[in-house]
Amino acid sequence: MRTLIKNVTILTMNEHFDVIEDGQMLIDDENIIEIGKTCIQKYDQCIDGHHGILLPGMINIHTHLGMIPFRGLGDDCPDRLRRFLFPLESKYMTADLVYHSSKYAMAEMLLSGITTFMDMYYFEDEVAKAADEMKMRGFVGETIVDFPSCDSQEAYGGLDYCRWFIPRWKNHPLIVPFIAPHATNTNDLEHLQLAHQLATQYNVPLSLHASELDYEMDYFQKEYHMTPTAFLDHYDLLDQNVILAHCIHINNDDIKLIQKNKSGIAHCLVSNLKAAKGVMPLKELLENGVSVGLGTDGPSSGNTLELFSMLKMIACVHKTVNHDRGAFHAQDILSLATIHGAKALHIDHLVGSLEVGKKADFIIVETDSVNMYPLYDPYSALVYSANPSQVDTVFVNGKCLVRHKELQLEKLSDLKQNLQKASQTFSKKALEYAKEMPDE
Amino acid sequence: MRTLIKNVTILTMNEHFDVIEDGQMLIDDENIIEIGKTCIQKYDQCIDGHHGILLPGMINIHTHLGMIPFRGLGDDCPDRLRRFLFPLESKYMTADLVYHSSKYAMAEMLLSGITTFMDMYYFEDEVAKAADEMKMRGFVGETIVDFPSCDSQEAYGGLDYCRWFIPRWKNHPLIVPFIAPHATNTNDLEHLQLAHQLATQYNVPLSLHASELDYEMDYFQKEYHMTPTAFLDHYDLLDQNVILAHCIHINNDDIKLIQKNKSGIAHCLVSNLKAAKGVMPLKELLENGVSVGLGTDGPSSGNTLELFSMLKMIACVHKTVNHDRGAFHAQDILSLATIHGAKALHIDHLVGSLEVGKKADFIIVETDSVNMYPLYDPYSALVYSANPSQVDTVFVNGKCLVRHKELQLEKLSDLKQNLQKASQTFSKKALEYAKEMPDE
Repeated sequence: MRTLIKNVTILTMNEHFDVIEDGQMLIDDENIIEIGKTCIQKYDQCIDGHHGILLPGMINIHTHLGMIPFRGLGDDCPDRLRRFLFPLESKYMTADLVYHSSKYAMAEMLLSGITTFMDMYYFEDEVAKAADEMKMRGFVGETIVDFPSCDSQEAYGGLDYCRWFIPRWKNHPLIVPFIAPHATNTNDLEHLQLAHQLATQYNVPLSLHASELDYEMDYFQKEYHMTPTAFLDHYDLLDQNVILAHCIHINNDDIKLIQKNKSGIAHCLVSNLKAAKGVMPLKELLENGVSVGLGTDGPSSGNTLELFSMLKMIACVHKTVNHDRGAFHAQDILSLATIHGAKALHIDHLVGSLEVGKKADFIIVETDSVNMYPLYDPYSALVYSANPSQVDTVFVNGKCLVRHKELQLEKLSDLKQNLQKASQTFSKKALEYAKEMPDE
Repeated sequence: MRTLIKNVTILTMNEHFDVIEDGQMLIDDENIIEIGKTCIQKYDQCIDGHHGILLPGMINIHTHLGMIPFRGLGDDCPDRLRRFLFPLESKYMTADLVYHSSKYAMAEMLLSGITTFMDMYYFEDEVAKAADEMKMRGFVGETIVDFPSCDSQEAYGGLDYCRWFIPRWKNHPLIVPFIAPHATNTNDLEHLQLAHQLATQYNVPLSLHASELDYEMDYFQKEYHMTPTAFLDHYDLLDQNVILAHCIHINNDDIKLIQKNKSGIAHCLVSNLKAAKGVMPLKELLENGVSVGLGTDGPSSGNTLELFSMLKMIACVHKTVNHDRGAFHAQDILSLATIHGAKALHIDHLVGSLEVGKKADFIIVETDSVNMYPLYDPYSALVYSANPSQVDTVFVNGKCLVRHKELQLEKLSDLKQNLQKASQTFSKKALEYAKEMPDE
């Protein structure tokens, strides 16, 4: 079946940043087959974009979808990780809860215009199942960590989980399983090496938290007299299949190492700022040609799983950090959420821009909302004015998953109800933990 | 007529931060007359809040509503003020355009939950007319500046405009006219003194841009060996009727002077960051008991006229600036947009919190949207998750102006059409200016 999308301003995000005003795009069951002012091939159905903005689906390259039940819990608590996250996660996180949380989280991402995600958490087979059912494009990574976790009674049990889980999903058309050592400082060298070997053996990505925390930096300085990045490079653990999340505390030498190894980076600005951790040197990374995509981090860190508030915050914060209002044009900011994210995941031959032959992963943002007028520059309107509730239509791999702001394959109310049921025990315990929190 | 609002979580924002789960509030034609778990007095009509969050209407204490036609024009242009703003404003800004832009801007504010604004621009009689028609609570301030402007052929013509305009609106129930010298460095001492005398004579507020720009700071250091704040204090130009906008570059002595004089401050973080100007020392101001409210700045600076994206950015940025994730609790952030804004404008006896005897200025934010689940803490949900499209209901002074996300007194499409008509010449010229902008 062929679908024509018409009456839209098209931001192709191709290498020339071509913008097609009042443009048209034709897709078949999976792929973009024509794009321009007027498409000449026949079509079976037509979608009128009503002067909306058509752009590539956004790509969220770092998140923890199983953590919806944590959202809003102890947001401003100084020791949240040890007060809430670790104890609740180890005792009350189950396969069922991860499954329903992930489906709900995918609904949230789709409704806000995200079509591809990279997730790392536990019970990732459940996340993969959820993605398969929701028809999203997803990278699903099982966590490997040096303590027993909710899905493993032994430390580093994630390695065995990966040996079972990766072959199960390796050939799925939309899902890429991968290996996710939790962080540089929560895996010893031996297990980082094992994880890396496994990633090489299966030819899958590897992603981990890196250069995120003050105490991580201190630990590596003390133990190895190196930064975490230099450590990873020294032991041949950095390569083009690696995606480093956060990289707040990297120096110029680290940037050169990341560039040399062609590793990608997930920039999680909102999460990093909210946790008072600092600001990643985005300008320097981009100047050195490193592929930087955007990550919301989990819903307990960045709270929302959308990228619109991130786009505005990235522009604002990095302009100020660099004391240059002319830096970070809206079009460059939007690139991070689209084609740069695709490059970091090495799927830019498939998605990240709207070009003939690529997969039909795209969104339409409506411009009827009050904040979208006037519209001199669609990039500016998306980065500085739009909010996630303005995403009207979402296609992934040629399938319409959101139309007129509603999910097409599932009912949001059903997903919420299922998640509520699955999280009854968790929620009860979470409230008990919250009440024990002393006032300041 | 009496209206009961039921089935809502009420954030009173009173001095105890009382939260009433599944609460009710009863209002008459203008005022809140009962609030609690169950209201016992009779009512004529009932509004079911459907588990939404009821909170005081938000207060935007610094904006330029006439500037909607500038939104998105040259956002990332290094010399935007001289390239776009000044030439277009002086030649093509008319009374008619200010009127229609202001009405549209008020619609935008109402739809995002803002019930009170403080505006400074030109043709402020038109802004007052617009506010009167839109039934908003508004502070409307005529600009005084040392060059001829769109509404005055002579420099400082705003002073005469004020002498005519202030008496016209002085006794309006919802509108407060005031005097707005443009900035510390665009008025000479003599005219700042004249403006201040006029404000005292009419007993109206005075607001101006202050300590905002690097070159403003350099100028005062060179001319007066003082900061702009010390200069204002030295010449007795600071008092409790003064609201200073921005205050990015203030030091500890300035903060003491502002506190001593009981002046208010409009914190415009998004605008300041986007223009790479810096970050106001919010923590130090609050620790010194200064009344700080929030300002979106004009739609050409902050782009949107809502405060939700500001709330999240303020929490994130100030936590990081102070390297303290436990600082700036969501409830404190929301205070800035409500009760603190009211205090800065000295209208906290009327609005800013939900208490019996205060005016019925309130909003309901729906919690059905995907990003609002789970909801452990309504403050967190509003600050970190909500977006302006989730404002369901807005009342100002007892009148329902927004219901189910739709304006009640005007049609948004009419307001947009009228603005489009009024800005035909402006838009044409704006596009010409944009095209002349050289690529980098």
